[in-house]
Amino acid sequence: MYTAEIIIMPLKELLDPQGKAVEHGLKNMSFSGMSNVRIGKFITIEVEAATEKEATEKVETACKKLLANPVIESYSYTLKPA
Amino acid sequence: MYTAEIIIMPLKELLDPQGKAVEHGLKNMSFSGMSNVRIGKFITIEVEAATEKEATEKVETACKKLLANPVIESYSYTLKPA
Repeated sequence: MYTAEIIIMPLKELLDPQGKAVEHGLKNMSFSGMSNVRIGKFITIEVEAATEKEATEKVETACKKLLANPVIESYSYTLKPA
Repeated sequence: MYTAEIIIMPLKELLDPQGKAVEHGLKNMSFSGMSNVRIGKFITIEVEAATEKEATEKVETACKKLLANPVIESYSYTLKPA
């Protein structure tokens, strides 16, 4: 059993409207010196697998086919034995 | 200048409908052995601050006042010199 921690972020080249909105929010609330806000997703999944290799393959496929949209997002993940 | 990486997750005690939806999606796509999916937010912010203490205070306040909803979410963060 492994716990996968997956980070999915909007690609750096693209505008991140949610991040921009939060950045304006911070400015409006007089938080100074905070910029370049980017907002993505953090997903934890428990993966049943005998080996780390098997778990990696499962998570990689899940990211590619369901979790991330490769046109606008990049993903990275770490696996920990649970 | 510091880069803050903030993780905001739904509290463990609460149902996470988005996570449940993804879990069903994975099952429907015949990904076996993946359970307990929880989905939160991953936020990166560039923080201008002279010391790590000052940066920590800024990020802590931003989390409390704008980024996280303490009723349903928990937050954690790390700071890296940029």
